[in-house]
Amino acid sequence: MSDTTTLTIEELSTRVEAIFSKAGLNKVQSGALARVITAGERDACKSHGIYRIEGALRTVKAGKVNPDAIPEVAEDDGTAIVKVNAHGGFANPAFELGLPVLVERARRSGIAALVVNDCTHFSALWPEVEGLTENGLAGLVMCPSYSTVAPTGGTKPLLGTNPFAFGWPRKDTSPYVFDFATSVAARGEIELHRRAGKPLPEGWALDADGKPTTDPEAALAGSMLPFGGHKGSAIGTMIELLAGIMIGDLTSPEALEFLGTTTLAPTHGELIVAFSPKAFAKGRPGDPFQRAEVLFDAIIGQGARLPSGRRFTARAKSESEGITLTAAEMAGLDRLLEKGLDTVS
Amino acid sequence: MSDTTTLTIEELSTRVEAIFSKAGLNKVQSGALARVITAGERDACKSHGIYRIEGALRTVKAGKVNPDAIPEVAEDDGTAIVKVNAHGGFANPAFELGLPVLVERARRSGIAALVVNDCTHFSALWPEVEGLTENGLAGLVMCPSYSTVAPTGGTKPLLGTNPFAFGWPRKDTSPYVFDFATSVAARGEIELHRRAGKPLPEGWALDADGKPTTDPEAALAGSMLPFGGHKGSAIGTMIELLAGIMIGDLTSPEALEFLGTTTLAPTHGELIVAFSPKAFAKGRPGDPFQRAEVLFDAIIGQGARLPSGRRFTARAKSESEGITLTAAEMAGLDRLLEKGLDTVS
Repeated sequence: MSDTTTLTIEELSTRVEAIFSKAGLNKVQSGALARVITAGERDACKSHGIYRIEGALRTVKAGKVNPDAIPEVAEDDGTAIVKVNAHGGFANPAFELGLPVLVERARRSGIAALVVNDCTHFSALWPEVEGLTENGLAGLVMCPSYSTVAPTGGTKPLLGTNPFAFGWPRKDTSPYVFDFATSVAARGEIELHRRAGKPLPEGWALDADGKPTTDPEAALAGSMLPFGGHKGSAIGTMIELLAGIMIGDLTSPEALEFLGTTTLAPTHGELIVAFSPKAFAKGRPGDPFQRAEVLFDAIIGQGARLPSGRRFTARAKSESEGITLTAAEMAGLDRLLEKGLDTVS
Repeated sequence: MSDTTTLTIEELSTRVEAIFSKAGLNKVQSGALARVITAGERDACKSHGIYRIEGALRTVKAGKVNPDAIPEVAEDDGTAIVKVNAHGGFANPAFELGLPVLVERARRSGIAALVVNDCTHFSALWPEVEGLTENGLAGLVMCPSYSTVAPTGGTKPLLGTNPFAFGWPRKDTSPYVFDFATSVAARGEIELHRRAGKPLPEGWALDADGKPTTDPEAALAGSMLPFGGHKGSAIGTMIELLAGIMIGDLTSPEALEFLGTTTLAPTHGELIVAFSPKAFAKGRPGDPFQRAEVLFDAIIGQGARLPSGRRFTARAKSESEGITLTAAEMAGLDRLLEKGLDTVS
């Protein structure tokens, strides 16, 4: 018997959907979650793959997300803002529902925004970004998280790891996409250092007293630091303002207060800004998509890399060869399917 | 005789305007330039104050900016994009012309963009940001520069120092504003290290062969690095895409090619995105402006600072006590007024 199993993307998605379905999520929720988790696994982005199923189920079990929510698009009020209420469900089905409306609005207005309110977000932001680039639009996506990051000059967790993501569509190849935390490192990386008994690089974290530390244990009890010093701190703050406060949804400190823990997926909103390069470039010299290729060639030509390259390579491999899981991963999926919410504490 | 002279903000603005006027700039150009340069001096932001007059005049003398340009707003095409053509003049009068149109459009659409095309930009971006916050809007502003920054992993100048600025309006107090270069340091800071004979901190620059260097001389002949590693590099690239390519204007490499030097103010475009917090928050619980104050209090309450604080303190002082210039600065203004374009090479 082989130690690994190879599934097609669709087979894995069906399996993941069955897990959520059996755990009591409705069709809309379980389908969207399965798609986004399978996309993570397909792109060898393990931290956003099947590993996330348990956290999602834990959040359901804790009653912090509504497994039966049906997201709803608000009526067109003539603005360039599309509002989708997730009604306490996960962000992903709400985004799927709002995306075609956003695309239409961005084509009409040149620039438009999609707001997802009252949702639980636990996936990466690149699925949202790629939803836009697949439709020929550029996009900027951001959301708060929960307080784990001290603002530069501060001493205590306040900001979230607040991801910031952007995408630009490219013809006949994968889009230009970046998606990163505005903290210098992800919490998981600190945890990995702890397990390996390795000190953290300087500048990653503060201890509970607000003093710089390289001790992972002390860092987990203290706060992480923003990337790029005061600049990253400012961007993290901007995300609280635009994608929390402005859209009338929870900030990172409010999300933490609501959950009371960082072990569940955070409840908040999400802001997606879509740009139509066609509308912006209209009447100006040059084709924006061709000109972007010149820039990308210049970046690659001097030995630098475009972001997300590894993800797209893994995706191509998964699409042609399928997704290979270890015996332990397969057993985990079986256990989750069989026991559902009982497997999580 | 005193070594310093104190002028009111208006007196300084009149003096600066006279310099540009005498050098042949029309009323629209000289007035807007005087306002933005005086604002820099008023805020004790010396690198964007009267020090900039010479560079602006040098760019006029080199024939790279049109001193007689009259900016023009494109007809309303029903989108949420306002386009202003600077017609080869400076960005500032074009922004002043477009601002009220943008404000109206952002109130109507909730989100809107102002594009300034065919302009020369040499000031900070906070004047644009504050133009929005004064009208109760949040704003995101960016523009390319000219190639001086290597993308992370690369070896040669390609990106510009590409400033990124954001603002959020506050009642009865100065707005939340940040405005920074996406390079780890400004070129001027490297120049200051060179003059002082001091090595650069690690991670600031590469030499002409693309190797890391702490020698300021080698750095000036090589390239600067983005702030925050690959994350800052990605944001710098996003700015080339959105505020160069998407709006049909020059990227940093194209601006450098057009000018042939980094001693003149760069020619390109500018992208300003305006958000109406009122429109976004409509129908949601809580007042966004009050909620933002809770966040700011939490930041300040743990000893961190809000960006631009020093600028606003200096502004308050200038407003009550006037702007104090040294004898050398006053003599410089007199010389610029008398000799105009003949004082610059």
